[in-house]
Amino acid sequence: MQSVSFYEPVMDRLVNVNSSLTEMAERKHPFLAQLLDHTFSTPGKYIRPAITLLASNFYAHDERITEKMATGVELLHIASLIHDDTVDGAALRRGKLTISSLWGPKAAVLAGDYIFAASATLVCDTGNIRVIRRFAETIMELSSGELQEMAETYNPEQSMESYLERIYNKTASLFTTAAESGAILSGAPDACSEALRSYGHNLGMAFQVVDDILDFDGTEEETGKPIGSDLANGVVTLPTLIAMKQKNCCDAVTRALKHPEDSELMQEAVSIIQDDTVLEESYEFAGRYCVKALSDLKGLPPSPSRDSLEELVSHVKVRRS
Amino acid sequence: MQSVSFYEPVMDRLVNVNSSLTEMAERKHPFLAQLLDHTFSTPGKYIRPAITLLASNFYAHDERITEKMATGVELLHIASLIHDDTVDGAALRRGKLTISSLWGPKAAVLAGDYIFAASATLVCDTGNIRVIRRFAETIMELSSGELQEMAETYNPEQSMESYLERIYNKTASLFTTAAESGAILSGAPDACSEALRSYGHNLGMAFQVVDDILDFDGTEEETGKPIGSDLANGVVTLPTLIAMKQKNCCDAVTRALKHPEDSELMQEAVSIIQDDTVLEESYEFAGRYCVKALSDLKGLPPSPSRDSLEELVSHVKVRRS
Repeated sequence: MQSVSFYEPVMDRLVNVNSSLTEMAERKHPFLAQLLDHTFSTPGKYIRPAITLLASNFYAHDERITEKMATGVELLHIASLIHDDTVDGAALRRGKLTISSLWGPKAAVLAGDYIFAASATLVCDTGNIRVIRRFAETIMELSSGELQEMAETYNPEQSMESYLERIYNKTASLFTTAAESGAILSGAPDACSEALRSYGHNLGMAFQVVDDILDFDGTEEETGKPIGSDLANGVVTLPTLIAMKQKNCCDAVTRALKHPEDSELMQEAVSIIQDDTVLEESYEFAGRYCVKALSDLKGLPPSPSRDSLEELVSHVKVRRS
Repeated sequence: MQSVSFYEPVMDRLVNVNSSLTEMAERKHPFLAQLLDHTFSTPGKYIRPAITLLASNFYAHDERITEKMATGVELLHIASLIHDDTVDGAALRRGKLTISSLWGPKAAVLAGDYIFAASATLVCDTGNIRVIRRFAETIMELSSGELQEMAETYNPEQSMESYLERIYNKTASLFTTAAESGAILSGAPDACSEALRSYGHNLGMAFQVVDDILDFDGTEEETGKPIGSDLANGVVTLPTLIAMKQKNCCDAVTRALKHPEDSELMQEAVSIIQDDTVLEESYEFAGRYCVKALSDLKGLPPSPSRDSLEELVSHVKVRRS
């Protein structure tokens, strides 16, 4: 776990989440245990479970319940990464070989299914049907967001609405569920749960928009993939949409999407999108979600957890990895 | 839907299940709608949802709830078939091209994820946490059964215990859940739910054992795959275990598993397993589960639904497809 300050109020509880993950591999069929061990031995950044725990910290409650939820949220994220890596044929995740590259796509698909289901059993243990149903809907949204992205690949005629729906499904849905479930399960009043739900939504949207910007504005070390990867893979994101609008349906970008094999054309399109005014407008777009997320927090009781949720917004905004 | 008589008492209700499936494709992103349309346009045999509805028919209750459950059970079965076909590279299912062969493995993995999650939301609508948790556990068991099978491929040193655990996970788990959930959600007393749970377990075990026998004793038209496919793919099932025991650790079978590329050796092994005494002992094994399943039904009130559940046992026993 990283020592970024926004984890501070829930550090002890994230340790419990981490223990629950590593314990999952015990008492299983040896092959499944091996796959789970491999998966949990390199922990992620735990941003999503941290959001659940921070959102639960405004009201005294049975913390074992929200730790189950936080573990479920992280497991859901892990399961979706395993399936993403499998279908994308990714060799590495967090610097380690993926399940798919070590044991083949069959083991990876099944391990992902197992972890999806395991996440749901943990959420069942919260005993809250509203939260359980919302969690299942989140899995539907995640997969439909990925399918949308797949269907719209290499299509220059995409609307901003379609992009926003897609990144909500793909990313912001789980941030929303992470925050809202923490609030609901802590017994927070409806207004507070609604504020935290909205916070999760806006933070998640900002998170994905910044991710999409860094694909053009980051470095290969920061993002772990070559600059312009999204465009090269035909995925149209915010900076591309803004470039096409600013440049009045930019011809080079459209042509690059039609001829992705032409690396010179692709480089030209990437350079157009890397234009200062395009990136500036893109960051402003992300910034508006950050402003909304901060505003969602205003009605909450001042506390270290509220401070952490605020810091998380700044972290997303300036994130370079 | 087939006109086999055991469907009779729940025929109208299975029509509702079928409508719920086809309605799922409406109001979705066009690509997702296309995948769902393709999936639901060729209905399966609906054995599992029929079990849920028949098991629910002993006590008057809100039938919309058990129809939701039955739909969830069928969706879970469909999702697992989509993932199985994807990881096995199967081109056809129910005589139609699979999602994976039409739109590629990425679409198929994501569509399976979506349908798994959709099945869970339907089960959430029953409002019964015990049933919801059991349902999530079933998905864990399904995927861990498939992983077990994968890990034990081409291994002649398998125990009967390991085989039974594997087929419970792979097949009988969902039959168990289908029957038990119908009973619980109809408000049946505990003894009745327990009897139906046990019925589902025994029926599911018989179903898979017969399936494994037909791989050697059926015809290619009946099973839709070449005779001896399981062994050729390294999957050790009951007839193989019995042959190895009867013939005192049969050398030909062990060698065939070590050299699956040697088709002559494989044919020799298949012939040994097709021996009358091996098949007879295998059918007796399945028969004992059928006897137990029938005995589970004895305490239930006599009714057309009980008759149907009895007929289902005979259907599984004599099933040739």
